[in-house]
Amino acid sequence: MAKEDEEIGKTEMKTKDYHDPPPAALIGTNELGKWSFYRAIIAEFIATLLFLYVTILTVIGYKAQSDPTKNPDACAGVGVLGIAWSFGGMIFILVYCTAGISGGHLNPAVTFGLFLARKVSLIRAVMYMVAQCLGAICGVALVKAFQKSYFNKYGGGANELAEGYSKGVGLAAEIIGTFVLVYTVFSATDPKRNARDSHVPVLAPLPIGFAVFVVILATVPITGTGINPARSFGAAVIYNKQKAWDDHWMFWVGPFLGAAIAALYHQYILRASSIKALGSFRSNV
Amino acid sequence: MAKEDEEIGKTEMKTKDYHDPPPAALIGTNELGKWSFYRAIIAEFIATLLFLYVTILTVIGYKAQSDPTKNPDACAGVGVLGIAWSFGGMIFILVYCTAGISGGHLNPAVTFGLFLARKVSLIRAVMYMVAQCLGAICGVALVKAFQKSYFNKYGGGANELAEGYSKGVGLAAEIIGTFVLVYTVFSATDPKRNARDSHVPVLAPLPIGFAVFVVILATVPITGTGINPARSFGAAVIYNKQKAWDDHWMFWVGPFLGAAIAALYHQYILRASSIKALGSFRSNV
Amino acid sequence: MAKEDEEIGKTEMKTKDYHDPPPAALIGTNELGKWSFYRAIIAEFIATLLFLYVTILTVIGYKAQSDPTKNPDACAGVGVLGIAWSFGGMIFILVYCTAGISGGHLNPAVTFGLFLARKVSLIRAVMYMVAQCLGAICGVALVKAFQKSYFNKYGGGANELAEGYSKGVGLAAEIIGTFVLVYTVFSATDPKRNARDSHVPVLAPLPIGFAVFVVILATVPITGTGINPARSFGAAVIYNKQKAWDDHWMFWVGPFLGAAIAALYHQYILRASSIKALGSFRSNV
Amino acid sequence: MAKEDEEIGKTEMKTKDYHDPPPAALIGTNELGKWSFYRAIIAEFIATLLFLYVTILTVIGYKAQSDPTKNPDACAGVGVLGIAWSFGGMIFILVYCTAGISGGHLNPAVTFGLFLARKVSLIRAVMYMVAQCLGAICGVALVKAFQKSYFNKYGGGANELAEGYSKGVGLAAEIIGTFVLVYTVFSATDPKRNARDSHVPVLAPLPIGFAVFVVILATVPITGTGINPARSFGAAVIYNKQKAWDDHWMFWVGPFLGAAIAALYHQYILRASSIKALGSFRSNV
Repeated sequence: MAKEDEEIGKTEMKTKDYHDPPPAALIGTNELGKWSFYRAIIAEFIATLLFLYVTILTVIGYKAQSDPTKNPDACAGVGVLGIAWSFGGMIFILVYCTAGISGGHLNPAVTFGLFLARKVSLIRAVMYMVAQCLGAICGVALVKAFQKSYFNKYGGGANELAEGYSKGVGLAAEIIGTFVLVYTVFSATDPKRNARDSHVPVLAPLPIGFAVFVVILATVPITGTGINPARSFGAAVIYNKQKAWDDHWMFWVGPFLGAAIAALYHQYILRASSIKALGSFRSNV
Repeated sequence: MAKEDEEIGKTEMKTKDYHDPPPAALIGTNELGKWSFYRAIIAEFIATLLFLYVTILTVIGYKAQSDPTKNPDACAGVGVLGIAWSFGGMIFILVYCTAGISGGHLNPAVTFGLFLARKVSLIRAVMYMVAQCLGAICGVALVKAFQKSYFNKYGGGANELAEGYSKGVGLAAEIIGTFVLVYTVFSATDPKRNARDSHVPVLAPLPIGFAVFVVILATVPITGTGINPARSFGAAVIYNKQKAWDDHWMFWVGPFLGAAIAALYHQYILRASSIKALGSFRSNV
Repeated sequence: MAKEDEEIGKTEMKTKDYHDPPPAALIGTNELGKWSFYRAIIAEFIATLLFLYVTILTVIGYKAQSDPTKNPDACAGVGVLGIAWSFGGMIFILVYCTAGISGGHLNPAVTFGLFLARKVSLIRAVMYMVAQCLGAICGVALVKAFQKSYFNKYGGGANELAEGYSKGVGLAAEIIGTFVLVYTVFSATDPKRNARDSHVPVLAPLPIGFAVFVVILATVPITGTGINPARSFGAAVIYNKQKAWDDHWMFWVGPFLGAAIAALYHQYILRASSIKALGSFRSNV
Repeated sequence: MAKEDEEIGKTEMKTKDYHDPPPAALIGTNELGKWSFYRAIIAEFIATLLFLYVTILTVIGYKAQSDPTKNPDACAGVGVLGIAWSFGGMIFILVYCTAGISGGHLNPAVTFGLFLARKVSLIRAVMYMVAQCLGAICGVALVKAFQKSYFNKYGGGANELAEGYSKGVGLAAEIIGTFVLVYTVFSATDPKRNARDSHVPVLAPLPIGFAVFVVILATVPITGTGINPARSFGAAVIYNKQKAWDDHWMFWVGPFLGAAIAALYHQYILRASSIKALGSFRSNV
């Protein structure tokens, strides 16, 4: 398989069989006049709403069904594995559905990473994040409306640092978890991948969904797994308890740092030769 | 990824690299003379029969094996997660198998959504729904024949509103759940997706199966998850208990409303510019 | 989606964008001189060996770990869901690995169905079945060698009719389960699928693996799920207890009948117009 | 499906529609001057670090949550099934992400198999293995830093032979498990697969991930499943207990033997005619 590497190397020097799109406009005011821009924002809002609605409903339903004080059968619910599938599966289908409309971010950390890599303009990035946070709030609000009696009792799906873990560990878990996700997003949307004879076909949404799935399996015991500030924010706003707000900074700082590191890693290590990297530090960021 | 959006925008104005098929005939009497029409109806019938047979057999088997009064090992069955995989996995393979024959609906709500979007004619839509309902009845009847002693004891796989939830919550759960499914169906079968250089390849049946899977994880505790009127109808006919019939309207009204909203969302928000949308309201529906 | 149907209809009348390969030779003696024929038989043998080794090892390991007399934690093993994933996942990867070499049958019922449809010659079909049965015996023998103390105690992975089910139910469960599998195999390998503009891309091995997975979720409580005579035969030979042999006929008759019905359904209902079907009854079988 | 075989046979004799890349340089000193070589090594290091971090964190978290002395709810964790998904899912996404950069080995046994098949040079193979082992050590060290109190208590994710199994069984389990993985890797990266009209499309990373997943389901009760010397080595270095080191040889010898057998099987049985095989023994190894 290493062959390829060399061939790609050669190709780069001669003629590329792919082309990197030019960087997005930094501010992007010209996008404001296009319907496709507003359509993308609507799509991000609806998709994040559906994401939070389905996943938090699954979390609350699981906790209600497996509560040993209510149900003698502790295995009656979908399990932590079912919750991880819910998050990963929703990301898979929603990225699949919205990729052609908005790029399928659904996550301010992903949007931030793609903004750093100049894939989206500042205005688009900010508007996406607003849409994602509003969508998340509405999605969790729906769950609260549906599950009034259980919602607060079972923690409202809010992200909190579990007992016995330091703030540093929680932050690090969020950073690395988001790194895994955003690294996968960058790999999946790399224009090199679209080249015809690549032996790794483009299945972008599936590995992105799996990235969320495996990170949840790993970090649920530590922070409940944020890696998506909109998800954490929506749950915190609707749940609105002290502990969720106290730890809330961690679910913005961690994901944004993780996304930034993934963007740097992809742009300056994986995509660039050392010299191109030096040269592009000035021209590209 | 947002780049694309603009590019797609440009493409639309100049020359599209895809073409929307013309809307289906409204009534569609001309289809009645074609073998392919009857073949499609047979395929819908057989596929819905297999769908209900496999999934309801899994539900009854799980409930029998994890009954604490019979079995000390509460983990002996496939779990709620296994049931969700059964439904999602069957939809994946059956949509895969029938997509080229009938379009792979297997669900009156999907057929209704595609009829609203003028993808199928009225006659075809009605005949599909009849075939789906008959197939579902036969599939559940097979399960009852196989599991006589357990079938009625464990609820016959019928959809009922769980205790503690209002009718409004049940209806809303069905509406949103079906919206997620039909939105995925529209996204997966969008002709734009077939364009060669799309970075999101067409894996239509897999995300459709996952949509069913994640909605089941979320709404099983509320309604047992219908989102498919044929599935709910088939189970209600064979189980035939008061409670299942009392709630039954919810499993037609909810899915049809959800499918209609998804069709509107896809046709008038995601696929059309605001002006095109206004213009097409007259010419297209 | 129904559009397509019509378009395919038109295409068939004018010029097909796909071509059905000519039927395989009925006897196929000319294959005996080719290395690729023996290579295919070796590949079937090795793949079936690996299939039985991995899956039966999973079954025995699960039963040992979740035995309540040995382990207080009934959830310690991979669960029935894990077993179903083991079978489905192995079929996915082994069909993927051997499809280009032998066609990836791994199952005498699949071979029988493809022989009926004239996709393989008689000699090839017989040799494949022998290789599959020998591979299965060796695979289960490896598990017995590894797990001496547990193998007989936990049933040797053999297929037996569970208590409380009649022979007719067991047979019917095997017939319908194999129908689901072989129907998926036919759909996945249909040459129509290879046409470039098909909106359902060819992911053949994944839905085939999922078909095995969902059938297992449904019928494990009834027969332990055969749907593969080599799997049942290999386990019966090594386990070699009366009960397994008494029920053994069911795991050949059921799968072969199911495969035959699937072949008929695919060839004469789904692929042929009614008139073509009548005409081809004489020329094709 | 067997048709194909013959056609491929014919094609080979006339004109191939694919081309095997020439074998890699045996030593490969010329690679040392290329940035792409160092980039590949960095990618292997980072990916193996992420692999071990996510998977071992999942293992420790599961054991902490399902400890019956601490938690009355034995189903509180992700289960053995969740652990298997964690390993398989991470391999899926990391092979997907690094395939275009380094070939996506992440495993010294895979690198060894590809070296034997002359797909990578000796220098590249050695450097990859060093990067993989260092990455694994760092990944497990992160888990230990995060989970100080649990890490040693719950075995540090180290591979050890379980009680009641002989060394021969453990070694054989590692050999066959690695054979399944490396056989899948060879099948997935076979240049024949890239031919346009192949009916088995190239989804390389997904079956590779599933291969890891199913092998773990089968062999976790025996050795904890190594099949990746870097994974076993990283855990042993950080855990650093006698038992883990005593059995450690098994997790190098087993995987390397399994990979070698898979390489031989693929190169001399599946890819070569008997005569070509004889001829190529001299020229190719």
